Amino acid sequence: MKNTQVLLARRPAGVPRENDFRVVEDDVRALASGEFLVENLYLSLDAGFRNWMNEESGDDVLPAMPLDRPVMGLTLGRVCQSRHPDYAEGALLMARLAWEEYSISDGSDFIVRLESDGRYPLHYHLGVLGDTGMSAYFGLHDIGRPQPGETVLVSAAGGAVGSIAGQIARIHGARAVGLVGSAEKCARLCRDLGYDEAIDRSAPDVAERIAAACPEGVHVYFDSVGGPLLEQVLVHIAEGAGIPFGGAAPAYNAPVPLPGPSNLFALVLKSARLEGFMTHRNVDRYPEARSALSGWLDDGRLRSVEYIHEGVAQAGVGFCHLFEGRNFGKSVVRVRDDDASPARR
Amino acid sequence: MKNTQVLLARRPAGVPRENDFRVVEDDVRALASGEFLVENLYLSLDAGFRNWMNEESGDDVLPAMPLDRPVMGLTLGRVCQSRHPDYAEGALLMARLAWEEYSISDGSDFIVRLESDGRYPLHYHLGVLGDTGMSAYFGLHDIGRPQPGETVLVSAAGGAVGSIAGQIARIHGARAVGLVGSAEKCARLCRDLGYDEAIDRSAPDVAERIAAACPEGVHVYFDSVGGPLLEQVLVHIAEGAGIPFGGAAPAYNAPVPLPGPSNLFALVLKSARLEGFMTHRNVDRYPEARSALSGWLDDGRLRSVEYIHEGVAQAGVGFCHLFEGRNFGKSVVRVRDDDASPARR
Repeated sequence: MKNTQVLLARRPAGVPRENDFRVVEDDVRALASGEFLVENLYLSLDAGFRNWMNEESGDDVLPAMPLDRPVMGLTLGRVCQSRHPDYAEGALLMARLAWEEYSISDGSDFIVRLESDGRYPLHYHLGVLGDTGMSAYFGLHDIGRPQPGETVLVSAAGGAVGSIAGQIARIHGARAVGLVGSAEKCARLCRDLGYDEAIDRSAPDVAERIAAACPEGVHVYFDSVGGPLLEQVLVHIAEGAGIPFGGAAPAYNAPVPLPGPSNLFALVLKSARLEGFMTHRNVDRYPEARSALSGWLDDGRLRSVEYIHEGVAQAGVGFCHLFEGRNFGKSVVRVRDDDASPARR
Repeated sequence: MKNTQVLLARRPAGVPRENDFRVVEDDVRALASGEFLVENLYLSLDAGFRNWMNEESGDDVLPAMPLDRPVMGLTLGRVCQSRHPDYAEGALLMARLAWEEYSISDGSDFIVRLESDGRYPLHYHLGVLGDTGMSAYFGLHDIGRPQPGETVLVSAAGGAVGSIAGQIARIHGARAVGLVGSAEKCARLCRDLGYDEAIDRSAPDVAERIAAACPEGVHVYFDSVGGPLLEQVLVHIAEGAGIPFGGAAPAYNAPVPLPGPSNLFALVLKSARLEGFMTHRNVDRYPEARSALSGWLDDGRLRSVEYIHEGVAQAGVGFCHLFEGRNFGKSVVRVRDDDASPARR
């Protein structure tokens, strides 16, 4: 059985480029006892994984990615062969595996079992009903905790998590204001996702626009960017503000560490919280979040927007698009149609 | 009646110098209706007030201090004349007034009424039983929340708040590790305040010493410094760490804003919290904190260490000592003995 894979060919210097990745075809090896084979259907493209492409990035979340090995990422797939007692053929899984058609696991990877009743497109389990939706849900519920009438500012509002976070803010009766990279995305944010206001963060007067859009201050800043933008927002935070902090995309690409915001003292003056979170640490509560999110999908208050690439070979290109700001909504790679999967029950 | 006052003669350029302050003698003016006169007994010297000596520092906590006016600060005093229905002569108050013998208020200042049964020295109501103790209490209880056996690292452990925070950490069964400015203070910290370990932050290998003193990571970092030291500590924070953030002394003195820590992403990786607080915003809960703190004083588990200056004219000099690291424990100025106060009941 042939296995198309996308390898990390070299460590990105700054923003990832297409040449940092290489597409190869390998053979799937035989399973050892205790292993199972996953046929990947979709790959999730997440800027956060850029961090572990750096040479000395290993930490207790992930090791640094090895060169010339398939790029690590979140995948959605079905078990298609198994020599492991807990993973039967046909089981649907979201897992931290790799950019390839087939992955072998011994069950020690980050794995979430899924049930799909076919109500939603399968890739929703990587997006709005997967880690992406979980990030928006836990970041807003556990950390941001907006009250009705308060203002929630979202840093990468056109991204996968941000496109959902603003909608959840509105479901809670808060105003949603989004920061995005272009005037065109501003329009889509308000039209397609119901944001109350949108700000083009490439504009020269971002600070003034934030102040104008948040006249009572920023009660919740849903941040996946950090850096200079966080510094600008800190000037406008409201008393008791909560800042769910889920990532720092510009920092992953920096050849030397970027200085942090110079005005962290604003947190003291405003009794405000900057609180980091890693979504997978809440895995025990995924059912609670999934139930809330699917309820909102069903009653039409929440919608998913996707940016889909066709074929595993496109994973590297699609990953680069994230950093060029070309995606709007959740970026996924369709490896193959589930209907075409012989493992599907 | 003569009133010795310490004025802000010029805005400090960097670290405050004695010449930034000027001692003058003025006459106390007659009270208008609705005003009362406070005879100040003690002044609290707090590095945090340095911030409002800068020209453009006004915020919703305090306005920027005007030049040639008495320096604003926390004081402990008695009402000695009153034309205000709510403030009777003899009432003991902690208030945000000024470095002077007599202050006039109309009741709109930050004022906390005190009862003293003479069990404790009066100046405790500015220190361990005043805003200082409140900062240690609320920072540790509400934000840090250490568990027994966890490690609490305190940034300015020889300072007023830090000298208490480490003791409270130990009362809660946590290990207390303190950062101080000299080897001599390290010795005092362990000997006089019961810290488990002390680190001289002027040593070249501070990062290694933090790692060695906190082998399971820093569960709580009680920070009133921010800046480069926060950056070094972030490398060693434990999963789920809480960082009560009560001040950023080096930032007050900086002619241009200091860059923040370049590794704030550590907050994401460790699901950790950096949470600012202003103690006076908990004023409704001061009785709860005071009751806990006095209980610990009574049973000998908590002790107060003071650094006392004699006479209001010493306030400027004493304030400069804070930034030279000369104080150990709570810095106060004794304006006059309460026994000598004719207003005392």
